[in-house]
Amino acid sequence: MQCVACGARYPPHPRLVRCPRCGGLLDVKVEPARPPSWRLWEQRRPGVWRYRELLPAVSGVKPVSIGEGATPLVELENIGRMLGFRRLYAKNEGQNPTGSFKDRGMTVAVTLAKAAGARALVVASTGNTAASVSAYGARAGLRRIVVVPRGKTALGKLAQSVLYGADIVEIEGSFDDALRAVMEAVGRDARLYPLNSFNPWRLEGQKTLAYEVVEALGGEPPDWVVVPVGNAGNISAIWKGFRELHRHGLIDRLPRMAGVQAEGAAPLARAWRKGLNEPLFVDKPETRATAIRIGHPVNWPKAMRAVRESNGVFTMVSDREILRAQAMLARLEGVAVEPASAASLAGLIKLVEEGVISSDETVVIVLTGHGLKDPQAMLEAGARRYVAAGVEDAVKLVTSLAGG
Amino acid sequence: MQCVACGARYPPHPRLVRCPRCGGLLDVKVEPARPPSWRLWEQRRPGVWRYRELLPAVSGVKPVSIGEGATPLVELENIGRMLGFRRLYAKNEGQNPTGSFKDRGMTVAVTLAKAAGARALVVASTGNTAASVSAYGARAGLRRIVVVPRGKTALGKLAQSVLYGADIVEIEGSFDDALRAVMEAVGRDARLYPLNSFNPWRLEGQKTLAYEVVEALGGEPPDWVVVPVGNAGNISAIWKGFRELHRHGLIDRLPRMAGVQAEGAAPLARAWRKGLNEPLFVDKPETRATAIRIGHPVNWPKAMRAVRESNGVFTMVSDREILRAQAMLARLEGVAVEPASAASLAGLIKLVEEGVISSDETVVIVLTGHGLKDPQAMLEAGARRYVAAGVEDAVKLVTSLAGG
Repeated sequence: MQCVACGARYPPHPRLVRCPRCGGLLDVKVEPARPPSWRLWEQRRPGVWRYRELLPAVSGVKPVSIGEGATPLVELENIGRMLGFRRLYAKNEGQNPTGSFKDRGMTVAVTLAKAAGARALVVASTGNTAASVSAYGARAGLRRIVVVPRGKTALGKLAQSVLYGADIVEIEGSFDDALRAVMEAVGRDARLYPLNSFNPWRLEGQKTLAYEVVEALGGEPPDWVVVPVGNAGNISAIWKGFRELHRHGLIDRLPRMAGVQAEGAAPLARAWRKGLNEPLFVDKPETRATAIRIGHPVNWPKAMRAVRESNGVFTMVSDREILRAQAMLARLEGVAVEPASAASLAGLIKLVEEGVISSDETVVIVLTGHGLKDPQAMLEAGARRYVAAGVEDAVKLVTSLAGG
Repeated sequence: MQCVACGARYPPHPRLVRCPRCGGLLDVKVEPARPPSWRLWEQRRPGVWRYRELLPAVSGVKPVSIGEGATPLVELENIGRMLGFRRLYAKNEGQNPTGSFKDRGMTVAVTLAKAAGARALVVASTGNTAASVSAYGARAGLRRIVVVPRGKTALGKLAQSVLYGADIVEIEGSFDDALRAVMEAVGRDARLYPLNSFNPWRLEGQKTLAYEVVEALGGEPPDWVVVPVGNAGNISAIWKGFRELHRHGLIDRLPRMAGVQAEGAAPLARAWRKGLNEPLFVDKPETRATAIRIGHPVNWPKAMRAVRESNGVFTMVSDREILRAQAMLARLEGVAVEPASAASLAGLIKLVEEGVISSDETVVIVLTGHGLKDPQAMLEAGARRYVAAGVEDAVKLVTSLAGG
């Protein structure tokens, strides 16, 4: 492992989640015990662990798995036609066990935590991460503790964690206080294992999205991968996945990465536009796309590197554009996502308009979470409702709609 | 096609959804154009259409597909150990595109509807069926119309249909009135295509669950398949799937089918207990497991046949047993389901206690819908909540929980 900030190197260990010297992010480098190959992988059942040559070595425990990964790559024929694309695809991560891409990372990180003897998982999160930690902790037989600021989270957002049997600790204070409590507790008690976004082992699982995309496209990478950016871990992980395939000779070229942020929470996109090398952090991020409502993205150094190395781009879109894209995906393609996921389609549309992405390129947009994650947003899409006074009236209404 | 009630035979046609002579249920018989084989199927991408030799022939249109099927068969190690099983599995249908098993059937039925020239899909439903019809209709570019009794459905239950852009017709009357309006409208206007539970083409897609189970178990069927029973289509479809594998020499024995109903909506289980050949219909079904709250199951003749032919059983469980099973699945295995799905685990526990199912048998329980389908039920599972006055207090709390 190597620190992204100070360059210090360490032998890999599951408990190393930040640089002990400077507190910086750590990069994981996996040296495969045997050469990875498509032929080898194809013989195994689909999912994250099919690619185990490129995952961290786990000894002594079985992978903590609930059927994550192997999500469909859906061809967006209708939207593609509208935008002039012949090869436009969506990787629908909402079909993971807890309804988001987080499960890919959690299967790896929780397996390592268990192998390292952890007794309890702990995370400061109110959203998809909390749900995923709670599920994988349950599966692993580990205690799972979710720390949230008190009074700032509707319990409904934590409904999944509740069902998965997490302990919910509500702290009088801010989200930063919750995160500080997590790190402090982990420092004092080795039975605890932290799963916040800085955990580099989660990215090792998330990178398998790249492998699946290439496999589904018959061994070829796309020209562009468009990813919603919140804490910026996913775009970093996916890029790492493609780079590793390239390094091991499994693809012969690399895609370009496009990171999409919401205008009210766009520290990376705003910095990118100005040619800066560091984010323009946002203290009070605001967007309807709650899963990417993050003003201080933890993984920004990795994400900046991913976009720069890949000759990619950051962009930002308005909430209106996001919600419009959400409705387009549902109504033209039958794919329901939470608003944050739709940022990738909104971003693609913008990048096509700006001439950055051309419609003769092959594009994959990443849909990060299921529509069911945010029932309120589904309703806000607006219903066409009609009232019928009785059966005969309903029959007339229905037949007139059939012709509409 | 053949009528289950009067035995009349018809050449297969997508528009035949009930017997024109007597109104009875129709059975579909697929004659494969070439012999089905595991080797053939394994070469195709996973999902419902991999098995197309045993699906209705479709000509002229591409399958209307959103990445349905290929759901994980999750080994329930922790619950299995508790019950003494060595081979206990759950087929998690919640990981389908709209979050339930309905998608398997809809991809087939909507493809046929499109091929037959339908302009609009119509269904009377407030739940998982409406969501699935709305998604596949959107994907197919067809209008989708959901008819519901007015004032009896919270719009929240229809949130998915709203996002998928369905027309929602609210009729002053009962659910039966809604269904009557659908059938009447379909009879008058050939542009409309009905997708309620009597539609036999949906079952052709749903039967692929059996194929996937056998594939995941290395070519062997389980000893038992335990299925929640509402309108009774799924248990009928799954049994049909196993029978077809057997007929074509792809398995050499058949599983036994166990159908599980909620006590307050148990027309089949109550009839079974008394040795009757017809259901004891329930006019006011009541259960927390809304997806199986059905007193007059449409597909009862097929379901009775499935259980009888397979030397299986119907049983029923209380809402308390269902909710306990739901929490067990989430907290011991990391699998979150809606209450109706948990009926299968509750039923299994009961059948083990009664000595009907033995723990040295291989059992697959079918989990029909995702936990996110019913957020309220997730919250009702009960949270362990703690309040911390500040960071230091939270640290103490978290470390004490780690040791608990």
